[in-house]
Amino acid sequence: MKDIHTTCEWGKGERWGDAETETGMSRLSLSDTDKQARDWFHETTTALGCKVHVDAMGNQFAVRPGLNNDAPPTYAGSHLDTQPTGGRYDGILGVTAAVEMLRVLNDNWVETSYPTAVVNWTNEEGARFPKSMTASGVWSGDIPLEDAHNLKSVIPANDTATMRSELERIGYLGDVPCSWEASPMAAHFELHIEQGPILEAENRRIGVVQGVQSYKWFTVTVRGRDSHTGATSFQHRADALLTASKMILASHKIASKHGALASTGILNLKPGSTNTVPGFVQFSLDIRAPQDDTVNTTEAACKSAFSALAAGEDVLNIQAGCTPSSRQCTVDWHTDFVSPATHFHDDCIASVQAAAQDLCGSGEVSGRDIGSWGKLMTSGAGHDSVYANKRCPASMIFVPCRDGVSHNPSEYSSPEQCADGANVLLGAVVRYDKL
Amino acid sequence: MKDIHTTCEWGKGERWGDAETETGMSRLSLSDTDKQARDWFHETTTALGCKVHVDAMGNQFAVRPGLNNDAPPTYAGSHLDTQPTGGRYDGILGVTAAVEMLRVLNDNWVETSYPTAVVNWTNEEGARFPKSMTASGVWSGDIPLEDAHNLKSVIPANDTATMRSELERIGYLGDVPCSWEASPMAAHFELHIEQGPILEAENRRIGVVQGVQSYKWFTVTVRGRDSHTGATSFQHRADALLTASKMILASHKIASKHGALASTGILNLKPGSTNTVPGFVQFSLDIRAPQDDTVNTTEAACKSAFSALAAGEDVLNIQAGCTPSSRQCTVDWHTDFVSPATHFHDDCIASVQAAAQDLCGSGEVSGRDIGSWGKLMTSGAGHDSVYANKRCPASMIFVPCRDGVSHNPSEYSSPEQCADGANVLLGAVVRYDKL
Ligand SMILES: NC(=O)NCCC(=O)O
Ligand SMILES: NC(=O)NCCC(=O)O
Repeated sequence: MKDIHTTCEWGKGERWGDAETETGMSRLSLSDTDKQARDWFHETTTALGCKVHVDAMGNQFAVRPGLNNDAPPTYAGSHLDTQPTGGRYDGILGVTAAVEMLRVLNDNWVETSYPTAVVNWTNEEGARFPKSMTASGVWSGDIPLEDAHNLKSVIPANDTATMRSELERIGYLGDVPCSWEASPMAAHFELHIEQGPILEAENRRIGVVQGVQSYKWFTVTVRGRDSHTGATSFQHRADALLTASKMILASHKIASKHGALASTGILNLKPGSTNTVPGFVQFSLDIRAPQDDTVNTTEAACKSAFSALAAGEDVLNIQAGCTPSSRQCTVDWHTDFVSPATHFHDDCIASVQAAAQDLCGSGEVSGRDIGSWGKLMTSGAGHDSVYANKRCPASMIFVPCRDGVSHNPSEYSSPEQCADGANVLLGAVVRYDKL
Repeated sequence: MKDIHTTCEWGKGERWGDAETETGMSRLSLSDTDKQARDWFHETTTALGCKVHVDAMGNQFAVRPGLNNDAPPTYAGSHLDTQPTGGRYDGILGVTAAVEMLRVLNDNWVETSYPTAVVNWTNEEGARFPKSMTASGVWSGDIPLEDAHNLKSVIPANDTATMRSELERIGYLGDVPCSWEASPMAAHFELHIEQGPILEAENRRIGVVQGVQSYKWFTVTVRGRDSHTGATSFQHRADALLTASKMILASHKIASKHGALASTGILNLKPGSTNTVPGFVQFSLDIRAPQDDTVNTTEAACKSAFSALAAGEDVLNIQAGCTPSSRQCTVDWHTDFVSPATHFHDDCIASVQAAAQDLCGSGEVSGRDIGSWGKLMTSGAGHDSVYANKRCPASMIFVPCRDGVSHNPSEYSSPEQCADGANVLLGAVVRYDKL
């Protein structure tokens, strides 16, 4: 808990409670405060006896030697960047609990069979540079290094920084190639807050994560015509914002129908004047579902609905009282990011489940029969474990968070819940090392 | 035309055609380029023999003496500020044609009975400081000077400038009080492009403007809860942007039903991250209709619809396939600007009509029978003549603009159309002076 709140001095966000530590976080990837958190990671893990290296995406790898160092380390880790209005646990808990694991191993003179290690991945959130899990994606070979380096900041809106320029600026453009070959892993374990309400609602202590749902990110651009709000009749308008509003609503309805999620978190328009009908709107669209098929079907249905809305063929809306326009908008889609559904590795899932059973359980557990303390679950959010899982066995550990709230300053897990997670993380890594 | 295109060198906007002058304008009120246009106004009217003064809102008054200077001047004028993506005619035509009037009077040794004058009003557009016709509103006594001075810039989004700080910065905080008593007018005539499609569609040369429709501007704030796009079910969200999208659509439907216009030109949200459901959205709402009653009814209907949408009681949307949310948003309204329906003065309307008949007509015209060259009309857009009309007789002259397009770089009226307007402006002022 001390590490969490120490590192959260850098990039403190909005206050939500009276206590010292009751603020959120606003530590965008590769910002000045992210550099401070990275420096802490480097110094702390070095002091704990690790050899630390940084790769070309700024990923930090801290390796604690084992008895036999000819094989890759078993890793624990997550990320230290946050959302612009994020909390103190998302990602941060996973890194600080992994650092705590190093301390417990040291304090107890534990010599693991092979090396163990901690990783801090760059730009997991995708909030500043709009691909989530960017740097683990480069490490796994799924995202080309150049594409990642050239990603442009979307926060603040007029920022011209790229990932590469910011890595250079804060001194974290490492000289080790960013790849699973250069920084190999035996396995990857990640502790994370659930970011959903299920564990809390069902009063369970640990989520054993079997996989991550599928998602895609798009940028949708709607072009109409700037015109005067007072002198242009509805018929003569090509109102890009009215059209975008219909699209956002349509994406919600379509996703509801298909059992998917569709969300818009960014929307920018031009020219931005009270008395000018906007001729340009650009918005993000994030579509998710447990199955790839569902995401693809939802995407296809949104594409055809958006085209119809841009063309003014929104018959339903007309019936409901919209004045049809004689002028059309155009709509363009750009795919920013694709993360197919992920299924974690059985050996890692079993290590997590056994470690959790050790901490909380009684009697044997087998298969999906996991006892009342825990739950086998699929993550709604993406995580670096998704890309790690492509190059080594991986799994995750979830702990409850209050009201399922995340990406919000008031995100909260109690010290007891954090400790549960840290204990299971340690147990899973040690078990896998033995395996 | 030379004055138009000379002054349009300062604050050139987006290019829409190949010719030298085929760009729009982006000359926000009290910007550096607005200062350049003001300096031109001062020098040019001074050189034409006028005495020029500037008031506490930066309004510029250039007075050409008459035979008897004991009575207030008859004014022609408009504004030199533009929209962020505006054109070369909106406002600019009215000022440059008034300056041309001074030249024609000089060149022809015309001595008017009373003084004639030209005015350049500050921040007519309301694009940068969000009250339209701000400085004529202060002049007429409708907007308190302090409110106007404290107006904050909305473009660019993070600007901290106020009207007063910008008036000081560019050297246009005049020492004459801003009031109709300090700068009295016998009458106010304003030439403007129609900004709508009617004159062009009906092939008429001049619009004789009888009044201006009613309008109100609001800022609507929707507050929900930031949450994770991937880990938060639709039921658990309070999605401020989805709710705002429904409101924008609802305002359109309600306005359609009441024969009003409702438009949103500005929308800002927080935090602005692809994978965070926005907990905060603020948008502008501009409601217009010929009658005050219609604006008020539309406002009331929007208020109750928005409250229902914020509370999740959007039964229609639920039937149409929206997933209802167990969490509510809140909605707050702030009224930024109110401009009731305006009826111009019969004497001024008659002066415009007679001058236009002189230029284009044949035979007599009387009442609404105005011949095929022109049309009696009501302005959809607000103009400084609205406030002028509260303290002196006023009317306006419209000329056609291509496709009715305004608040758009490609806004265009031909040299012949501009000349028609300038001729009628001159004729109306001279007629009123005689009257
Ligand atoms: N865990 C988390 O918030 N990851 C960010 C990537 C995503 O959008 O799911
Ligand atoms: N004429 C004009 O565009 N005026 C701006 C004020 C308004 O929004 O009507």
